Amino acid sequence: MTSHSTNMRIKLPTICIILEVILIILFGVFVRYDKETDSKKWHAHHDNNGSEIENDFYYRYPSFQDVHVMIFIGFGFLMTFLKRYGFGSVAFNFLIASFALQWATLMQGFFHGMGSDGKIHIGIESMINADFCTGAVLISFGGILGKTSPVQLLVMAVFEVTLFAINEYIILNIVEAKDAGGSMTIHTFGAYFGLVVSRILYRPHLEKSRHREGSVYHSDLFAMIGTIYLWMFWPSFNSAITAHGDSQHRTVMNTYYSLAACTLATFALSSLLSEEGKLDMVHIQNASLAGGVAVGTAGEMMLTPFGSMIVGSLAGIISTLGYKFLTPILDSKLKIQDTCGIHNLHGMPGILGAIVGAITASMATHDIYGDGMANVFPLVADGEVTASGQGVRQAIALGVALGFALIGGCIVGFIMKIPIFGTPPDTLCFEDQIYWEVPEEHHASHEEMTAVATDEGMNA
Amino acid sequence: MTSHSTNMRIKLPTICIILEVILIILFGVFVRYDKETDSKKWHAHHDNNGSEIENDFYYRYPSFQDVHVMIFIGFGFLMTFLKRYGFGSVAFNFLIASFALQWATLMQGFFHGMGSDGKIHIGIESMINADFCTGAVLISFGGILGKTSPVQLLVMAVFEVTLFAINEYIILNIVEAKDAGGSMTIHTFGAYFGLVVSRILYRPHLEKSRHREGSVYHSDLFAMIGTIYLWMFWPSFNSAITAHGDSQHRTVMNTYYSLAACTLATFALSSLLSEEGKLDMVHIQNASLAGGVAVGTAGEMMLTPFGSMIVGSLAGIISTLGYKFLTPILDSKLKIQDTCGIHNLHGMPGILGAIVGAITASMATHDIYGDGMANVFPLVADGEVTASGQGVRQAIALGVALGFALIGGCIVGFIMKIPIFGTPPDTLCFEDQIYWEVPEEHHASHEEMTAVATDEGMNA
Amino acid sequence: MTSHSTNMRIKLPTICIILEVILIILFGVFVRYDKETDSKKWHAHHDNNGSEIENDFYYRYPSFQDVHVMIFIGFGFLMTFLKRYGFGSVAFNFLIASFALQWATLMQGFFHGMGSDGKIHIGIESMINADFCTGAVLISFGGILGKTSPVQLLVMAVFEVTLFAINEYIILNIVEAKDAGGSMTIHTFGAYFGLVVSRILYRPHLEKSRHREGSVYHSDLFAMIGTIYLWMFWPSFNSAITAHGDSQHRTVMNTYYSLAACTLATFALSSLLSEEGKLDMVHIQNASLAGGVAVGTAGEMMLTPFGSMIVGSLAGIISTLGYKFLTPILDSKLKIQDTCGIHNLHGMPGILGAIVGAITASMATHDIYGDGMANVFPLVADGEVTASGQGVRQAIALGVALGFALIGGCIVGFIMKIPIFGTPPDTLCFEDQIYWEVPEEHHASHEEMTAVATDEGMNA
Repeated sequence: MTSHSTNMRIKLPTICIILEVILIILFGVFVRYDKETDSKKWHAHHDNNGSEIENDFYYRYPSFQDVHVMIFIGFGFLMTFLKRYGFGSVAFNFLIASFALQWATLMQGFFHGMGSDGKIHIGIESMINADFCTGAVLISFGGILGKTSPVQLLVMAVFEVTLFAINEYIILNIVEAKDAGGSMTIHTFGAYFGLVVSRILYRPHLEKSRHREGSVYHSDLFAMIGTIYLWMFWPSFNSAITAHGDSQHRTVMNTYYSLAACTLATFALSSLLSEEGKLDMVHIQNASLAGGVAVGTAGEMMLTPFGSMIVGSLAGIISTLGYKFLTPILDSKLKIQDTCGIHNLHGMPGILGAIVGAITASMATHDIYGDGMANVFPLVADGEVTASGQGVRQAIALGVALGFALIGGCIVGFIMKIPIFGTPPDTLCFEDQIYWEVPEEHHASHEEMTAVATDEGMNA
Repeated sequence: MTSHSTNMRIKLPTICIILEVILIILFGVFVRYDKETDSKKWHAHHDNNGSEIENDFYYRYPSFQDVHVMIFIGFGFLMTFLKRYGFGSVAFNFLIASFALQWATLMQGFFHGMGSDGKIHIGIESMINADFCTGAVLISFGGILGKTSPVQLLVMAVFEVTLFAINEYIILNIVEAKDAGGSMTIHTFGAYFGLVVSRILYRPHLEKSRHREGSVYHSDLFAMIGTIYLWMFWPSFNSAITAHGDSQHRTVMNTYYSLAACTLATFALSSLLSEEGKLDMVHIQNASLAGGVAVGTAGEMMLTPFGSMIVGSLAGIISTLGYKFLTPILDSKLKIQDTCGIHNLHGMPGILGAIVGAITASMATHDIYGDGMANVFPLVADGEVTASGQGVRQAIALGVALGFALIGGCIVGFIMKIPIFGTPPDTLCFEDQIYWEVPEEHHASHEEMTAVATDEGMNA
Repeated sequence: MTSHSTNMRIKLPTICIILEVILIILFGVFVRYDKETDSKKWHAHHDNNGSEIENDFYYRYPSFQDVHVMIFIGFGFLMTFLKRYGFGSVAFNFLIASFALQWATLMQGFFHGMGSDGKIHIGIESMINADFCTGAVLISFGGILGKTSPVQLLVMAVFEVTLFAINEYIILNIVEAKDAGGSMTIHTFGAYFGLVVSRILYRPHLEKSRHREGSVYHSDLFAMIGTIYLWMFWPSFNSAITAHGDSQHRTVMNTYYSLAACTLATFALSSLLSEEGKLDMVHIQNASLAGGVAVGTAGEMMLTPFGSMIVGSLAGIISTLGYKFLTPILDSKLKIQDTCGIHNLHGMPGILGAIVGAITASMATHDIYGDGMANVFPLVADGEVTASGQGVRQAIALGVALGFALIGGCIVGFIMKIPIFGTPPDTLCFEDQIYWEVPEEHHASHEEMTAVATDEGMNA
């Protein structure tokens, strides 16, 4: 019975191999080089003019690598703050991200990247988009960190990536909202999806593992590696797929100032909310990033550094207040056990970002944007909608993202509960030892291990 | 009385909020997008020729992000070597850098970036310059690490950024010296400013905290993350604002070889200076970077890899000798308690870099530089001054930087001493626990904590 | 006698200083700026057309910095997994890489970069190539980690860099094989060279230090920093010196998907091979990178993402099996004590990469490559050889790399055994304390230290 719940020897290899075989077959059937990665097509176009720099690769690769660092180092290490779940944090992050980016290539391709030949043509932009989709999955992972098996995580990724692609298609191609940095498609969707999953997987006896939910001194320093990388490269994240030229440049700058302001607001609030005026590492590690989330939609717009700093400050304040007051309430009243506080870092700041985007869009004028309007708001430039109309579309997009997250998370949460996928017992949450060979000095005490059998019996 | 000195609940939020509100107001009044980040202006210029790559962003963004990594990861983690000050190192670094880069945008704008419309127009280059200015503040932080409150640090940043901008304006625009990598404006200024501040804040009873001034095994590994990132990205730092083309390319290469040579020199000296021939992590973490500082001025000149390697070797030797022999003397004789040894890593190598720059400038000929002279030494190219004249200007610039550092540091040090800003007691220097919620296993012993009250009484 | 073996006070400074002086002299005599880093030559060419972006720097610098991160952070931290050898891992990596990249500039210059003026002209591409050569040395370092003195490592680097340059010249310029990411020149060569050296330096009494050969919890997290950076930036590594345009873009994409597939395969196998289904950090840290090695040759070819994922999966499987079954056999039967398992991460995947390259090359047709054939297979494009002929050349190149590695490693291993270079006693392998000032809490026990004298007597 014990082995059924936590021994992954059959389950994990089976799901990994099945998924990778499916991926390989589907890639073989559907995926092709696009004209910028295909030797023949590229040279057919470029041999006469010889302009190598026309390849989009040279505009987007530095940003892509920054995004890649955020996905694997940023998210991975941010979650290592738990004293006994460092392996699971960085390595399960690595596993599900590696799967999700392959799967996202297919799903995003199916829903909005198919060529007239029925094939998905890929290049640097599809790689960035796959990393973005992966980001949403990792946000959801943060809400259930330490309380699921790796098989459950892969199952979640299969469905969440699919829903992400559909949601993204609706928001960008049907509603025609703008969301280059993903305040709605990535952060709002990923956060509320994860919160609902966490609600479905609610553990009434989680107090048996609460002593492991904190940090130790050096685990907080590992987490700061994640924080700082996310913070530094967020300008690349928000600008990675914006239009070349002023749009990309402006998005970087708006994000940079929003984050800087957010950091000061976070330190201020963190100290203010402590009786002794002491700073809390949880706030610094997380809330200081909310400024990046909150300009995910409006970053490419003419928000100005001034506007960005106001938004960033607000995001830092909301997020820190959330960690202090809202997370305990979500836990005790709503039965949402949000390990990393994704509601504070991605949920509320994501909604704030969507609102800021809607307001900024509705204030767009030709006088401000000039001919650049075509890049930022093509519908407004074409005269198809007014600026207010674009603002309304932005607001609708937020509703769509929330809807997909809440309904999708609910369904996927119940799927994840199917016993075959395994799950840790309540006594061994936030504990690497059940899935990892852990070096000797770090074994759980004998008492804890013997407690497992009993608990597992209760769970099963 | 105790709470007066270390409880930051009122002070820290107050100063953070006041500063951020001032920043937001001043940004609203004075700061505007430049023509490369403004949608309308950009498209007015570029829609006809369509050349997106003309945007300076694509030349400078990769270097900018490398500099950003140096500021936040490099400086932040380099200082985590202290066994009990990891939170303060990486997170106060994060706080004051986030403030300083906003403030620097304004100060540098006021002194040398104002447009004819009375506005500061910003883009990628102003972001790099803001990060550079922030670097100087973080260097000074290294000299007083563990001995100040975060409020004192923010106060220092307010004044130091302002003085930096004035000093930089005089050196680059009045003296018209060259200093692309900041041997003078950043390193010499930041180091001697910090040393004077450290002198003013001299603590005669610091021996009460000396047992916390060392490292533990893993804190030294965290510090190596900082070292390696600084080392790797220093070529980007020195070249970030040089002219495009050969200048930027050459600066990278000179810095690369200087650092490589410096590393060998540092290992040689570190072993030689130990009785048992054992290497000292303090030397490896710091002195191996001196080669980057020492080519901060001459890196863009025709120094050659050969010349760079000589300079780098010298810098490594001087810096390691400084750690071994000079730091203890500064402490005991001059009452300068230099926590990170900034005199060895930034002070002396900065002066060396200024001298190398002056010599290299005075040897410039049209035969060596060709038409590239206009980029490196515009005054010489225009025939306004001779090469020797440029050399003299370089030497004057060093004097200006030293003057600003010594006088400025003195004034700012006394300001920082004002009791309202708070400061740790002598018994609790280099200790995170006074400003941070620290995870349980890491509490200072009961004895230490009870010792505080007594000591605070003495300090107050 | 004891001091003879482990005290480095004379040896290490002597070899560092001698090597650096030789480097400086040879750089002074032979090394010059190339036309893209020389002020005069650059402006003679470019002042009329003004096209700054023609400088190769802007295409290659972001990739170069990624490679740089792999060399210094990637390799350096990957090896910090050992509980008591973190300083030696990251800092000796730093030392020998700093030397090797200078020496490689000269050796690669002598063998295939000399201009008609008898000088070596250097720029961004030579810096990348120097980092590549350094990579091979660091791979070999992994095979002998913890069992050599820093002087032995520098001696190894002197000879291995030289042999690397000759081997590379033969493979690329005489055999005219393709190997942009170095499956053969870097990974196969570096791994088998290191394995033979490890065989020559075989220690029959290494069991006296085996208790130090494992990890502790946080050392495994430090190692994951190395792993993740290597994994993320491997696309930059494989593409750093490919042709601009589609080739560079395609190489990045192939490597990205190979690695993603490899990660899933590694998790599957790691769990499957454990009785309790528990994942092993050694596998995750290392085998998940084999997918990058295995597309080092074919990455720039029209391998397709589909093909890359198959290759990556195979690499992950082979590598994990190697860690589980082959490493113990190499140790017990063949007397090869491979500390980091370089045979599994670089050796077998390198050979796999060479074979995949040969097969992919032999399947090249003009119908697939179009005019891009000239970039990928110039000999085939010119009609000098058939695709099969190119495949044969690729296979010959593998033989050359293996030959150089085995014979070279043998000779260099014996040179390294010369007593004057010093070496740790069998009782103090994998122990920082003999070469480093280690913070107090980490001292080896008194028993261990007293055991040294005895053992040293036996060794000497």
